[in-house]
Amino acid sequence: MSTRTSLSDEQGRFLADTFGDAISLAPEVLRVYASDASLKTGTVLAVYRPRNAEELSRFMRWAQQENVTVHPRGRGTSLSGGCVPTVPGIVVSMLGMDRIIEISDTDFVAVVEPGVNTADLQAECAKKGLFYPPDPASSKATSVGGNVMTCAGGLRAVKYGVTRDYVLGVEAVLPGGDIVRFGGRCHKDVMGLDMARLFVGSEGTLGIVTKLCLKLLPLPELSASVLAGYASLDDAMQSMARVFRAGILPCAVEFMNETVLEVLTRTGEVPWPDTVRSLLLFQIDGSSDSVPHDMERLCRQLDDALWRIQGLGREEEARLWAIRRRISAGSYVLGPDRIGGDMAVPRGSLLAALRRFEEIAHANGKRLIGFGHAGDGNIHANLHYDASDPDDAARTQRTHRELDRAVLEFGGSLSGEHGAGCLKDVSLQIPPRERELMQAVRRVFDPTGILNPGKAY
Amino acid sequence: MSTRTSLSDEQGRFLADTFGDAISLAPEVLRVYASDASLKTGTVLAVYRPRNAEELSRFMRWAQQENVTVHPRGRGTSLSGGCVPTVPGIVVSMLGMDRIIEISDTDFVAVVEPGVNTADLQAECAKKGLFYPPDPASSKATSVGGNVMTCAGGLRAVKYGVTRDYVLGVEAVLPGGDIVRFGGRCHKDVMGLDMARLFVGSEGTLGIVTKLCLKLLPLPELSASVLAGYASLDDAMQSMARVFRAGILPCAVEFMNETVLEVLTRTGEVPWPDTVRSLLLFQIDGSSDSVPHDMERLCRQLDDALWRIQGLGREEEARLWAIRRRISAGSYVLGPDRIGGDMAVPRGSLLAALRRFEEIAHANGKRLIGFGHAGDGNIHANLHYDASDPDDAARTQRTHRELDRAVLEFGGSLSGEHGAGCLKDVSLQIPPRERELMQAVRRVFDPTGILNPGKAY
Repeated sequence: MSTRTSLSDEQGRFLADTFGDAISLAPEVLRVYASDASLKTGTVLAVYRPRNAEELSRFMRWAQQENVTVHPRGRGTSLSGGCVPTVPGIVVSMLGMDRIIEISDTDFVAVVEPGVNTADLQAECAKKGLFYPPDPASSKATSVGGNVMTCAGGLRAVKYGVTRDYVLGVEAVLPGGDIVRFGGRCHKDVMGLDMARLFVGSEGTLGIVTKLCLKLLPLPELSASVLAGYASLDDAMQSMARVFRAGILPCAVEFMNETVLEVLTRTGEVPWPDTVRSLLLFQIDGSSDSVPHDMERLCRQLDDALWRIQGLGREEEARLWAIRRRISAGSYVLGPDRIGGDMAVPRGSLLAALRRFEEIAHANGKRLIGFGHAGDGNIHANLHYDASDPDDAARTQRTHRELDRAVLEFGGSLSGEHGAGCLKDVSLQIPPRERELMQAVRRVFDPTGILNPGKAY
Repeated sequence: MSTRTSLSDEQGRFLADTFGDAISLAPEVLRVYASDASLKTGTVLAVYRPRNAEELSRFMRWAQQENVTVHPRGRGTSLSGGCVPTVPGIVVSMLGMDRIIEISDTDFVAVVEPGVNTADLQAECAKKGLFYPPDPASSKATSVGGNVMTCAGGLRAVKYGVTRDYVLGVEAVLPGGDIVRFGGRCHKDVMGLDMARLFVGSEGTLGIVTKLCLKLLPLPELSASVLAGYASLDDAMQSMARVFRAGILPCAVEFMNETVLEVLTRTGEVPWPDTVRSLLLFQIDGSSDSVPHDMERLCRQLDDALWRIQGLGREEEARLWAIRRRISAGSYVLGPDRIGGDMAVPRGSLLAALRRFEEIAHANGKRLIGFGHAGDGNIHANLHYDASDPDDAARTQRTHRELDRAVLEFGGSLSGEHGAGCLKDVSLQIPPRERELMQAVRRVFDPTGILNPGKAY
C-alpha cells in the first residue's frame, strides 16, 4: 500500500497528458473530494472522473504499476466514511458515468452507468410503467453505484428486499485494468460462482463498477399510507407484530420513538394529540382495486392506535411522509453535532434493543433519537451533542461505543445499510477467521492492495 | 487432487473407528451414492453422513490431511450431475442433518439444517402463518441445502425471487475443518463482504453448509390461478407481455409450447378445445379481499385467450397445476430417454429463443418439449430419444449442443436453476478471466482442491 503524500511531477504530468480534462489536480477541487457526509477527511492527491470503462482500465493499470492508492466514490453521501481516502491517494469519481443506457419494458431490466442518480432512475422507469424498488431514504442524493457498493436498503425493503436483490449483472474494472463482466440480463442465471452479487456491498474493495444491469418489476398502480399514533413505543411494536401476524406484507413500516416525537413537537406543528408518544408509518401498494381493501384490512389491525390518518395515492401520502422526513433536520435542536447509527437487530428484538439503547444513552446523560425501518429491524439511533463541549462529546462517543456492543448482544449488525466504511469497528462483529477469508478474497481481485485500503472489513 | 481409486485399509479403519455408524463402506450403499437424477455415475470410496458440524469438522480436517476428495450431496435430485463424484472420493450426505431448529414468528426467520426437505419446511412455516417462498417444482423431493447450493428458482420466482433472496446466514465447514459463520438473523446486514450469499449457488465448491438462517414472509391469505389456452405460443407470449404491461406481478407464469400440448392430449384427458395449442398458467396471491379483484384484473388482460379456467384457493387451483405436473411423465411418449435443458434468456426473448430451439430440433429430426417459467425467461427444453438407437442418440446430443450455443446468442444462460454440475460446458458462457477469478476465490476456501472437484466453474 502506498504511503506517499504527493504525486511525483512525472506522475502528475502523465495523468494530465493521458486523461486531460478528466483529471484535476487543483487544490480547491481536491478539498471537495477529501470528505463525504461523515465529515471525516483524508488527503486527495488527484481527482479522476472516468468517461468510460476503457479509459478507467488504462488508469487502473497505471495505478497498480505505480502503486498509487485509488478511492472510488459516487455521490459522497456515505455516513460511515466510505468515500474518504484513508491514506493519501487518487479519488475516482464515477459521476461522469451517469447514463441510463437502456430501460427495457420487455426484458424488465435497466442497464445503467454507476453514477446515475437513484431517484432519476426510478422516475425514468416509472415513465415506462416499470419499477426499480430499492429506495434509500436519500435516493434523491445518492447514485445507484453507491447504493450497489453498500447494498443500500431503505424504506421498501420489507416487501421488496434490498439493492442486492435487483442486481443481475455487473461490469467492473479491476486493479491492473482488467474489465470483467459477471451475470447479465437474465432474471435467473446460476452458472458459475455468484460474483455479480459479491460486488454488491463490497464497498469499492474488489473493483470499480462501470455498468450495471438491474432487475425491474411492473410499477404498482397505487400505494397508500397510514400514520398511527400510540401512547408508547411498546404499544406501537405490539401493533406492528399484529399486522405481520395477520399476513399483511407492507412495503414499508417506519417507527419513531418518544424522543423523536418530542423533537417533532418542538420543531413544528404536529397533527396528533398530546397523548401520542410514538408513531408507526405503514405503506402498502398494489393494484388500484386491491389497495383500498388492503388498507381497510391493515387498519383493522391498528385498532389500538390512539390516533391515525390515512393517505391514498402519492399526493395524499406525501404529507404523512413529510413528517418522517422532518426527523433528521429537527433533531439538531438536541445539539449541533451528530453521531448516527444504522444498526440492525432481528426484527422481534427491536423494542428490547431500542429500550436498551435508550438506557445506555440515559446513563450517559444523553437522549436517543430512535427511528427507522421497523419491518427490517433496522434502527437509526442518532445522538446529538455539542462538539465544542468536551464533556458532552466524550459522553456521546462513549454512548455510541456502548450502543455498538449492545447491538451485538441482540445478535444484531453494526450496519444495516450504510456499510462499515472506515468508521465502524468490524472486528467487534466479524470473527478473525471469517475476516481473513474476506481479505483473501479481496486479494484475488486486488493483489497489491491499491483499491480503497482501510475500508469495509 | 486425489486420483486414488480406493481408500487404504488404514483410512477405512480410521473412518469406521472415528465416525462409527455415520460411515458406510458397503458396496451396495456406495452404489446408491454413485449417481443422482442425471444418471451419470462416479466412483464412491465411502459414504459419510455427518451428525453435526463439529463431527464434520473433524472429518474435513482428516480429508484435507489425507488428500481425499469430498463430494457433498443433499437429496441427489441434481439433473446436471451436481452430486456425482467426478473423481473417486467420499460422498458426504447431509440428509442426517435435517432438523428444523427454529421457526420464529417474531424475527421472521427459520433456522434449519441443510438436509431438511423443502416442502416440509414450507408446511411447518405455514402452520405458523409464515411463508418460505422459494418453490422449486421438485420441492417435495429436494433438500433446502441442495436448493441453496444451486440457488434454486422454481415457480414463484417472478414475484418472490430465488433461493438467494432468502438466505440470511450460513454456517459451513471448510476443507481443513474450520467452522465459519457468515451473516445471521438480521434481515439487513451489510458488514463485511457478502460471503453468505457467495455460498448460494456455489454448488458445494466452497464448504459444506451445516446450518442456514432463512428469511420468511407473512403467509399470503389466498392464491388463485388461471389456465389460459391460445392458438399458438406467439399469442400466449403476447398475452403475457400485456399482463406485465398492465402492472400485474403474478407469483408464477408458466408456459407450454405446442409439443407439450400434443403430449398432454396423447397421454390423458384435456379440458380445452382442439383449437388450443399453447397454454399459460398464472398464479397470483395476496389477501382474501384483494385476490378476487386482482384475478378479475388479470383476466381482463387475457381477453384474447381461446379458452380459460380459473381456480380460487389451493383446492381449486390443484386441478390446474396437475396439468402442468403431467408434462414430465407424459413426455416419455416421445422416447424412453431424456436430455433436459433449463436455460434462461432475457424475458423479452423467450418466444424468439423458443422458436429458434424448435427449428434446431426440427433440423435434427427432433421434437422440442418446451415449457417453464415464462416470467423469468427460464425454459425447460427437453429432448426425448431412444438410447438404444445410435442415430437418434447422436441427433439428440447434437441438438442439445446446438441449443446451448443458441441460448448464448440470445444473451442467455446455460442454466437458470439446475447449476452447471459436471454436465454443462461452463467455458461456453463464462470468459477465461472471469473463470480464473472464480477459481482463485475457490482456492481461498479450498487451497488443496479436495472439495467437489470438476464441478460448477
